[in-house]
Amino acid sequence: MSAQTNGQVNGKQKDRSNLIPFSSRLKEGRALAQDVWSIFNAANLPADCINLGQGYMNFAPPKWIRDAAGEALGTIAANHYSHPKGRPRLRQALKNYYSPLFGRDLDVEKEILVTSGANEGQYSVFVAFLEDGDEVIMFEPFFDQYLPSVTFNGGKPVYVPLHPKQSKEKISSNDWTIDFEELRRAITPRTKMIIINTPHNPVGKVFTREELEGIAALAEEFNLLVMSDEVYETLVYDGKQHVRFATLPGMWDRTVTVGSAGKMFAATGWRVGWLIGPESIIKPTLAATTRIVFCSNSPLQEAAAAGIEEAVDRKFFETQRGEYEERRNILTACFDKVGLRYTHPEGTYFILLDISNIQWPENFPFPESVEGRGRDFKACWFIAMEIGVSSIPVSEFYCEEHVNIGEQYARFGFCKDIETLKHAAQRLESLRKYIVHP
Amino acid sequence: MSAQTNGQVNGKQKDRSNLIPFSSRLKEGRALAQDVWSIFNAANLPADCINLGQGYMNFAPPKWIRDAAGEALGTIAANHYSHPKGRPRLRQALKNYYSPLFGRDLDVEKEILVTSGANEGQYSVFVAFLEDGDEVIMFEPFFDQYLPSVTFNGGKPVYVPLHPKQSKEKISSNDWTIDFEELRRAITPRTKMIIINTPHNPVGKVFTREELEGIAALAEEFNLLVMSDEVYETLVYDGKQHVRFATLPGMWDRTVTVGSAGKMFAATGWRVGWLIGPESIIKPTLAATTRIVFCSNSPLQEAAAAGIEEAVDRKFFETQRGEYEERRNILTACFDKVGLRYTHPEGTYFILLDISNIQWPENFPFPESVEGRGRDFKACWFIAMEIGVSSIPVSEFYCEEHVNIGEQYARFGFCKDIETLKHAAQRLESLRKYIVHP
Repeated sequence: MSAQTNGQVNGKQKDRSNLIPFSSRLKEGRALAQDVWSIFNAANLPADCINLGQGYMNFAPPKWIRDAAGEALGTIAANHYSHPKGRPRLRQALKNYYSPLFGRDLDVEKEILVTSGANEGQYSVFVAFLEDGDEVIMFEPFFDQYLPSVTFNGGKPVYVPLHPKQSKEKISSNDWTIDFEELRRAITPRTKMIIINTPHNPVGKVFTREELEGIAALAEEFNLLVMSDEVYETLVYDGKQHVRFATLPGMWDRTVTVGSAGKMFAATGWRVGWLIGPESIIKPTLAATTRIVFCSNSPLQEAAAAGIEEAVDRKFFETQRGEYEERRNILTACFDKVGLRYTHPEGTYFILLDISNIQWPENFPFPESVEGRGRDFKACWFIAMEIGVSSIPVSEFYCEEHVNIGEQYARFGFCKDIETLKHAAQRLESLRKYIVHP
Repeated sequence: MSAQTNGQVNGKQKDRSNLIPFSSRLKEGRALAQDVWSIFNAANLPADCINLGQGYMNFAPPKWIRDAAGEALGTIAANHYSHPKGRPRLRQALKNYYSPLFGRDLDVEKEILVTSGANEGQYSVFVAFLEDGDEVIMFEPFFDQYLPSVTFNGGKPVYVPLHPKQSKEKISSNDWTIDFEELRRAITPRTKMIIINTPHNPVGKVFTREELEGIAALAEEFNLLVMSDEVYETLVYDGKQHVRFATLPGMWDRTVTVGSAGKMFAATGWRVGWLIGPESIIKPTLAATTRIVFCSNSPLQEAAAAGIEEAVDRKFFETQRGEYEERRNILTACFDKVGLRYTHPEGTYFILLDISNIQWPENFPFPESVEGRGRDFKACWFIAMEIGVSSIPVSEFYCEEHVNIGEQYARFGFCKDIETLKHAAQRLESLRKYIVHP
């Protein structure tokens, strides 16, 4: 082998564009499509548009938790690798907090796994459990990350829509329901897993015990693994109760529950999440996450630990819940006042606005990126450009077959401070003149 | 579907142990094997054993960089989601720092991608490019994470050993060489990718321009994607020069270079790394990492940005290099004094001690976990238990066929403070009485 070779082979200069083809797995699951987040990115919208689109806060995590991050940065150990399972302090804090909630003495070595955000935890479960062709049932609207995370690992998404009550009256997130016969029909011999998300993004639905028991019975009957994404567990309103799927009779052994410090403590950029479940699920998932990220960042694990250690005594979650209810009520009061229909959310920090009776001027200019998409894409674009409040079209969270359900809705996030929400509400009142009354 | 169902189906109570089988991909790539890190974990060793096994520092990142993390925590935005590509400030800092080093004006939108540690960046490249059955060439000894990361994504590892010069004299990391005919023979029509690691963990080898050109010629001839893991780029000693593979003629378009804030700034627990390469590689890899982690943690991205922004003016890398040379020299001086053979490392923070002429007492007790492994496993165990200094057996970084090369060596990390290394050196002098002179 000559060291003189200079990148030309036999005198030929190859065309170098896209030289090495990317994996076919990226051709599935909308992995390379322009996603809704890019289209409705702040950079594409007017500078003064109020961003209620993406689900992150315009306020910081509590100072006492940030202070704990600062303390961790002041140590030696918390600047270096953590154990792939997660830092002992955080796992211990999670054990103390969750053991009573799960009604069992959680094992910090075998039943708790810290991940690099809930997202990476979910991805790791797919890596650990999916075989090529395994089917994964997800309810629509679904969190858009599920889809490519499943297809990247050889899985096949199977969609079962939640059905909103068709009503001229105000509906609640609880009026979005499962057709259990439809769910049963979606199960095949290749079904490996079902994903539940309660409280549900973007519907805001807090699944009832009865509904979860219905799913549990099918999981039992067909021997399904259940991924219960409960990252909004602390954001449940109106006195509703969050039921943990894993606490239903017989469900512990087949359920992995997903949690998130980002959602819990208004720290979406910290990338600290966790999985709780039986050793039979956690152990293979640990093997996966260890290879994917090796471990999660150390200083913010320490901060999350401090958050969980002190949250109960400080009544942090109660206070935060009250604040979010107040935030939600600013938007719902505005929608009520204007006469806009929406789904009253019992959990999360999202509201689905029914945009089916909003009509924009016929000649309103739309960019190419929203043409050919659901009617909701145009509605969200129109509201962002004309009203100055951005939101996210909900048909993005549906398979093509069910787009018609999603395109009735725009998702508004209320994880913003009161002032911003009041300002947004003021602007949204101008929607009044675009409401058509058939 | 009845809500009365309680987890028993038709009155049968199933056996619940390991109910849902994990994916067959975990049966490959030693994914579930007890790894060397678990066996030589501090918890299994005497409490006062000096840990030179795992590659993390027993000192903190520089205060001025930690202060930047603290500042970021004091903002709102840097506590929330970053763009999946990475925070603009960090990408801009990387562009400014690396553009002169790569000899091109790097595009912050298309050619730089921040990842959740170098590890997750590498994993994302495998997700983005590997098809089932694609072969990936890696030099032995290899970074142990490569193997399962490749197999998880359907790839097949193909091993090509670096060959140490057989000599009774002291050898340098540069005396570990590639047999280019052996490398050529390893290439098949299914070869998709080759992984380079320079400076090389654990050999400490800084690949010469001539060696890299030899690899480049083969990459060109066989149209290979090159992953150049250069995370130890700032840790090169004795006036040697780090050559970036992507700067060789024709190589930019087929090379993705891996970098790490953890290695650069003694912050292994921050989990901030990056990939630099052409859009044809970065774009699919962005699609992968977006689904795997969505984004990397924000506060420590800001801190890494501050580090890179100021490192040149502060002469940080020169100073750090001097400190590491001093650390290295404490161990090499000890080995020289005692008459132990080793590979003099020109880069990284590892030294390979040749343990072939160390002989422990015949009746020395070994645990089950090291029985049946390479001779180096016993040597490392003996040195940890008897001498009180832990190291890592190098055969772990070889395929079974080539274990005989690796089992001559134990890896000692010198990423520890001077006092610790002096203490370790003092202890290691006791190895003298276990040296056999054939």
